Amino acid sequence: MAEGTEPWVLLREALEKGQIDDASTLIDALSAGDLARAVSHLPAEVQAQLLERVDAEAAADVLERLSRTQAVELVQQLEPARAAEILQELPLEAEVDIVRDLEEEDAADVLAAMPAEEADEVREVARWDDDVAGGLMGVEFLAVKGSLTMREVIDQLREGAGEFEEYDVQYVYVVDDREHLEGVLPLRTVVLSKPGAKARDVMIGDPLKVEAKTDLDALEDMFDDIDFFALPVVDEGRLVGVLRRGAVLEAVGEQAAVDHLRSAGIVDGDELRSMALWDRARGRLKWLSLNVGLNVVAASVIAMFQETLQTVVALAVFLPIISDMSGCSGNQAVAVSMRELSLGIAQPRDVLYVWGKELAVGLLNGTALGGLLGIVAFVWMGNPWLGLVAGGALALNTLVAVSVGGTVPLLATRFGFDPALASGPMLTTITDVCGFALALGMATALLPYLAA
Amino acid sequence: MAEGTEPWVLLREALEKGQIDDASTLIDALSAGDLARAVSHLPAEVQAQLLERVDAEAAADVLERLSRTQAVELVQQLEPARAAEILQELPLEAEVDIVRDLEEEDAADVLAAMPAEEADEVREVARWDDDVAGGLMGVEFLAVKGSLTMREVIDQLREGAGEFEEYDVQYVYVVDDREHLEGVLPLRTVVLSKPGAKARDVMIGDPLKVEAKTDLDALEDMFDDIDFFALPVVDEGRLVGVLRRGAVLEAVGEQAAVDHLRSAGIVDGDELRSMALWDRARGRLKWLSLNVGLNVVAASVIAMFQETLQTVVALAVFLPIISDMSGCSGNQAVAVSMRELSLGIAQPRDVLYVWGKELAVGLLNGTALGGLLGIVAFVWMGNPWLGLVAGGALALNTLVAVSVGGTVPLLATRFGFDPALASGPMLTTITDVCGFALALGMATALLPYLAA
Repeated sequence: MAEGTEPWVLLREALEKGQIDDASTLIDALSAGDLARAVSHLPAEVQAQLLERVDAEAAADVLERLSRTQAVELVQQLEPARAAEILQELPLEAEVDIVRDLEEEDAADVLAAMPAEEADEVREVARWDDDVAGGLMGVEFLAVKGSLTMREVIDQLREGAGEFEEYDVQYVYVVDDREHLEGVLPLRTVVLSKPGAKARDVMIGDPLKVEAKTDLDALEDMFDDIDFFALPVVDEGRLVGVLRRGAVLEAVGEQAAVDHLRSAGIVDGDELRSMALWDRARGRLKWLSLNVGLNVVAASVIAMFQETLQTVVALAVFLPIISDMSGCSGNQAVAVSMRELSLGIAQPRDVLYVWGKELAVGLLNGTALGGLLGIVAFVWMGNPWLGLVAGGALALNTLVAVSVGGTVPLLATRFGFDPALASGPMLTTITDVCGFALALGMATALLPYLAA
Repeated sequence: MAEGTEPWVLLREALEKGQIDDASTLIDALSAGDLARAVSHLPAEVQAQLLERVDAEAAADVLERLSRTQAVELVQQLEPARAAEILQELPLEAEVDIVRDLEEEDAADVLAAMPAEEADEVREVARWDDDVAGGLMGVEFLAVKGSLTMREVIDQLREGAGEFEEYDVQYVYVVDDREHLEGVLPLRTVVLSKPGAKARDVMIGDPLKVEAKTDLDALEDMFDDIDFFALPVVDEGRLVGVLRRGAVLEAVGEQAAVDHLRSAGIVDGDELRSMALWDRARGRLKWLSLNVGLNVVAASVIAMFQETLQTVVALAVFLPIISDMSGCSGNQAVAVSMRELSLGIAQPRDVLYVWGKELAVGLLNGTALGGLLGIVAFVWMGNPWLGLVAGGALALNTLVAVSVGGTVPLLATRFGFDPALASGPMLTTITDVCGFALALGMATALLPYLAA
């Protein structure tokens, strides 16, 4: 690659010149990050062209690097047969993620264009949500009857060798005639047992398993408690798939990333700058316009005290400081609560415990911050009473902020709201209302001293 | 467990009554999350007692559930022999994490109290940082010479069966006399090859491997690009360990969690409410006191316009709104940049591209928000000029906010600052200074119309 020439420039040039093989080679040569970056820089219509023209494997690489929203949009533009061809090159999980989000009719068309066996696998997983065991599991596994010997199991593995190369076989599952799970054979056991030993005699009986409907939180806890690489997934007793630890960890990581974006006001949980401008702007505006409303509510407290402000206009300097600093203190408490919630250390019923812990920190830090701001205000404006008002309001409002910040994520969880979405706006609004009321209320009471 | 009685109450009672076996049983019965929660609720001295008295395996369970800071503090209080006994029950990664953070002298004492082989394993990993391949790898693996037959390899596996039960054997590594890596034998290959086949003839030669000093970002990219369960780790050509995909995913997840906490102002990247009050307060205060300083700088802009404010005191109602809304818009841009950086889609040199994309969104959303606030201000205060000033300032400052928010994480990365720590304060300060200057500057220019 010529120095200084960005991959997406080369990619676009190759497409424009019809050098499809070059484009495929380039896609193959780029690392995951660079490919994502290159494709993201291409206009949407060039992305679609790319998928239509390069070989299916390269096209699948491209899809895998896009955000899910983008991948779905592009697949929707393809002929069903071409879409099916590309999707089959994806790992099952990625394939299912896309099919799940297609319009129902499109999904049916694409699945119809796939070999029946592949389509069935996709359907088996796609019927579950993407945050339960069924939706995260793989469906490529080897299930054998208990009467088989290790020699026969190895023969079966050998027969399927080509197929098994694509994924890690770690366990062989032992099932009865109704496909109900009876036991697990670690590959290690298969290797180390006598060739004539029967599966039923060397398997781990009554093995750990998960129900297909188990949700991500519970799955994370389970894998936290055990050391297994994968667990069998059952639905009404029947073995339907295998859930790898890695699939759970990835889903947890993705969830955390989405929560982070949501808590910062990207309400849909995902935005990449390569998405359409209108979608990006609208996704952000939802959150912002809610916040304008809440801000106006908070600011109306200031409006009620305009006479006081008229008399002591210097107060206007300190109101944004009190608002911002309280927000900072509150956000720290929110972050710790979100972390403790995700670790399972804090639970919704721990509200009082958390509140107590936050009040203690708030008392110390409120005193320190209030003292600091009080001295700054006194020295700056030359009025000790102004220092008392600004510092006192910040000190008291720090207590409000850490109380609200620490407990709101727990309360939101308890009452079924998404704590990542709800905590920020609630915190800001409450701390602003209280902070402005404290500062201006105290100022009104002390007006004779302040006006001096 | 009696209904309504929290686990930590039972745990404390068992300890107070000297029912050590009950405490061990309870620890064993609790899920990871519940155990973390129960132990976190115990006072520090009871936690230490717990570790001294319950059996080593239960004590290890407890350590594993605490934050690293807490675990290190507790281990430091134990006798070296007891500490060594407990640490050996931990998975190597967790063991190393704690030893790495002990005072040098304490670490030496604890390692001296371990069996030499175990201590060597810990030392091998602990000499690397916890965010490079060497620090994340496992050191329990089977390495064989290329001249061995599959039958002999299986014999070796069988000999080590007890040891191998504790972890997933997926690959056998083929090394030369200097322990340099020659090839990899997937367990599958061992099973499926002829018993007389030589390792050298069926192994995957010139296998993918990572250097021990490879950092987490690069490791994440590598595992993103490949489907392997684990990669061999080499140091100066010598095979020193095995890096599992899961270890990388967990480290990435932990990194993201820490970054999230840091960006919210928990500067040290970790706080649990069970930590000592002074440490918690101090950890938060670092960030807050920096922010007081920056806030005072921003507010000094307001102080320069006190005369304007005196004349149009209603402006004081809108300053915190402009400050907060700009912060919200900027934070959205920060969140998207952080996400794109972590995905590798955005790189520090993409500053101009990102800026252009942000300006487009800022133009749309700034117009919408500015228009909205302008109308609110006009209707509320009954002065169209005030609407123009408040709305106009917000519209323009939204452009500033998304520009700063989008580009600062990239610039911080480029100049070697931690974007998680640097972005927030820089964003707030710049948007406040600009927002206040815009609103009050426009107001000063339009004073005759506003004062009417």
